[in-house]
Amino acid sequence: MRMYDIIKKKRDGGELTKEEIRFFVEGYTRGDIPDYQASAFTMAVFFSGMTARETTDLTLEMAKSGDMLDLSELGDKTVDKHSTGGVGDKVTLVVAPIAAALGCTVAKMSGRGLGHTGGTVDKLESIPGFKVELSAPEFFKQVKDIGISVIGQSENLTPADKKLYALRDVTGTVESLPLIASSIISKKLASGSQHIVLDVTCGSGAFMKTPADAEKLAEAMVEIGTLAGRKMTAVITNMDTPLGSNIGNILEVKEAVEVLNGGGPEDLRYVCTEIASYMYASCFDASIEEARTKVLDALSSGAALCKFKAMVAAQGGDVSYIEDPSLFPEPKYAYRIVSPEDGYIASMNAETIGIASVLLGAGRSKKEDKIDYKAGISLLKKTGDRVTCGDVIAILYTDDDSKLLEVENMLLSSIKLSLSEPEKETLIYKVIK
Amino acid sequence: MRMYDIIKKKRDGGELTKEEIRFFVEGYTRGDIPDYQASAFTMAVFFSGMTARETTDLTLEMAKSGDMLDLSELGDKTVDKHSTGGVGDKVTLVVAPIAAALGCTVAKMSGRGLGHTGGTVDKLESIPGFKVELSAPEFFKQVKDIGISVIGQSENLTPADKKLYALRDVTGTVESLPLIASSIISKKLASGSQHIVLDVTCGSGAFMKTPADAEKLAEAMVEIGTLAGRKMTAVITNMDTPLGSNIGNILEVKEAVEVLNGGGPEDLRYVCTEIASYMYASCFDASIEEARTKVLDALSSGAALCKFKAMVAAQGGDVSYIEDPSLFPEPKYAYRIVSPEDGYIASMNAETIGIASVLLGAGRSKKEDKIDYKAGISLLKKTGDRVTCGDVIAILYTDDDSKLLEVENMLLSSIKLSLSEPEKETLIYKVIK
Repeated sequence: MRMYDIIKKKRDGGELTKEEIRFFVEGYTRGDIPDYQASAFTMAVFFSGMTARETTDLTLEMAKSGDMLDLSELGDKTVDKHSTGGVGDKVTLVVAPIAAALGCTVAKMSGRGLGHTGGTVDKLESIPGFKVELSAPEFFKQVKDIGISVIGQSENLTPADKKLYALRDVTGTVESLPLIASSIISKKLASGSQHIVLDVTCGSGAFMKTPADAEKLAEAMVEIGTLAGRKMTAVITNMDTPLGSNIGNILEVKEAVEVLNGGGPEDLRYVCTEIASYMYASCFDASIEEARTKVLDALSSGAALCKFKAMVAAQGGDVSYIEDPSLFPEPKYAYRIVSPEDGYIASMNAETIGIASVLLGAGRSKKEDKIDYKAGISLLKKTGDRVTCGDVIAILYTDDDSKLLEVENMLLSSIKLSLSEPEKETLIYKVIK
Repeated sequence: MRMYDIIKKKRDGGELTKEEIRFFVEGYTRGDIPDYQASAFTMAVFFSGMTARETTDLTLEMAKSGDMLDLSELGDKTVDKHSTGGVGDKVTLVVAPIAAALGCTVAKMSGRGLGHTGGTVDKLESIPGFKVELSAPEFFKQVKDIGISVIGQSENLTPADKKLYALRDVTGTVESLPLIASSIISKKLASGSQHIVLDVTCGSGAFMKTPADAEKLAEAMVEIGTLAGRKMTAVITNMDTPLGSNIGNILEVKEAVEVLNGGGPEDLRYVCTEIASYMYASCFDASIEEARTKVLDALSSGAALCKFKAMVAAQGGDVSYIEDPSLFPEPKYAYRIVSPEDGYIASMNAETIGIASVLLGAGRSKKEDKIDYKAGISLLKKTGDRVTCGDVIAILYTDDDSKLLEVENMLLSSIKLSLSEPEKETLIYKVIK
């Protein structure tokens, strides 16, 4: 078998066999197939596409390229949740403890911030003492004891995907549906959970800009995961506007705790209860109505918050910060941004706001950058809200005042005002199983 | 400017600017742009294509990437001829001396054999003593003295094309019209002649399999060359059947000498006189009818043969071999292949016959292989001929009898017989200027 023939076959629209896909993934991971053949291949995939069968085989081969977590000893209610990326997306911090409180098993690996989007692992690390690196025995013991653990991704998770993603990132082949789907699902398969709920975001802050594109990706991922024997649910959510009011690590932990306390912004509360409900419904084969009742119970009874605190304690975090979030340190600057005009907020560009929060210190521009957990943005007004000239729209939090003016300009340019009240945004477009 | 953006622009069907194309060619030649970006780019070009303007810019930038031969001191009748590859293609050996005998200036660089096709430089080297490597002053002096020199390509001719072609060859992006056209024409532009006659072959032994594909390539090359200021002619010729009767280095020199002596196979004589006529017509702005008369005169008067001998002598070759080709050494084996049936030869696969001749020693399977100049194939019957069971169709010449049976089988399988007389093959499909 030669990589050259595999490239030409895909270039000419052929369907690759399982053996050909394995030859590519194994050879590329080992370094036998050079980058220049892999990039020509991914560009051919960009143009020629892949069938569901090919995409599933690619996903399985990439999943098998490194460690495959075997969670079978934890029972049949292991549940994972994945978001395709968003700004202000602290959903995992809320839904993981809800699901665990309801008897689901959450043995989850999460990622760090990437580009304009934050990462769950960074957010958890902003809680003093919280450890995201556990040994496998520690991880399993904690999940057996309290039903939940969220840790960083193990080093050797899907090395094929790591290598291929880094190559696609510099060769213009990121935007390919089968390659995106296989990249995401390979990590989920290797992570071992039986039930997988995908939060497929769309809009200005997401990778997929339209609900139609998000739906295509969701369908592809559900199909692959199902073919690979997992129970899949995909929830297509709005990421045109940041989710909730807070962007930045400590700010988002605080907001998640508000929701676990039964409060928090309405949009965030709604999306979290829906996603948690689909996690429960999948694990217990329950109707979505029954699941919603259970989820609201877990919130109102305090069971979910209790589970969150148990996880924080088990992973070495200081629970007093969760009990009294005012203990979290405050940044030096809290800079108010006011509306220059009267009107309604017609739209906010979530990606621009995400980049603005990175500039304030909430994320990394380069891999080596250190995060300022205190930094971020609080949005006091959001899409659909009425503002009067002089109203505070947002507050920028940072220790570094050198970029305040730049960020202010970015933020103001990212917000469009209109004279008439805009239509209410849809938060969840569709659910695909 | 970033290569990443250039890849994405082409991927999404955009038209690249001259500056973007220069950025790619210069950066890739220098090694600043890695192979994996170049291969993703060429695959994007394969799918998205290039406009004539883009292809011309790519061609010019590749031409400029190394030495550009300045032939202006040799006058305005410098003429080059290029074949896109064939089996038994000894046309250059005939047309170059004809053109020179008629007052055209032939300062030509030729290539070596590649794959199943032979190379003019290898054929010339089969003449004892013939030197294909001349210094630039030697080359210029010879052309000034006798109007003709054919040498090997200089080391630093179009390094960008060399590097890119080697990459395309292993990444499945050879078959792209703008990339093929720019590769060929960049070398012709760098070689310096004002008049360029392209022999665009099509059929089983050529890169382009149909006249329609060959016409597209011819049109693209004529357009680029014209935009670059050269006078272009493309002759689309048949390469379904090998040209002439002989394949192999000494065998082809002998056949070329036959044509220069006014004999030789009819198909070869016809194609050579036509191509030589287009070379003369271009240089002297003559009608093709006038050119044909001149060419036939140059053959019948012996002027062309005389010019060929002058070139052989000037480049150190032993002219006695041209005067008496029976002096050439004979191979150990002359193995006759006979027809197993009665019938007409309906087709011969020229590529298979080319590969067969390489197996006998007439070409290189690997770059390091040594050529046996004596080896090759003589076709005694060709497409359209009537054969009777037991007739000798071909003779295999080689010093190595280990592959005779394999080659016999290849040859017999490459020849299709029919009961009825097939239509006469068209030798020249079209001429494009």
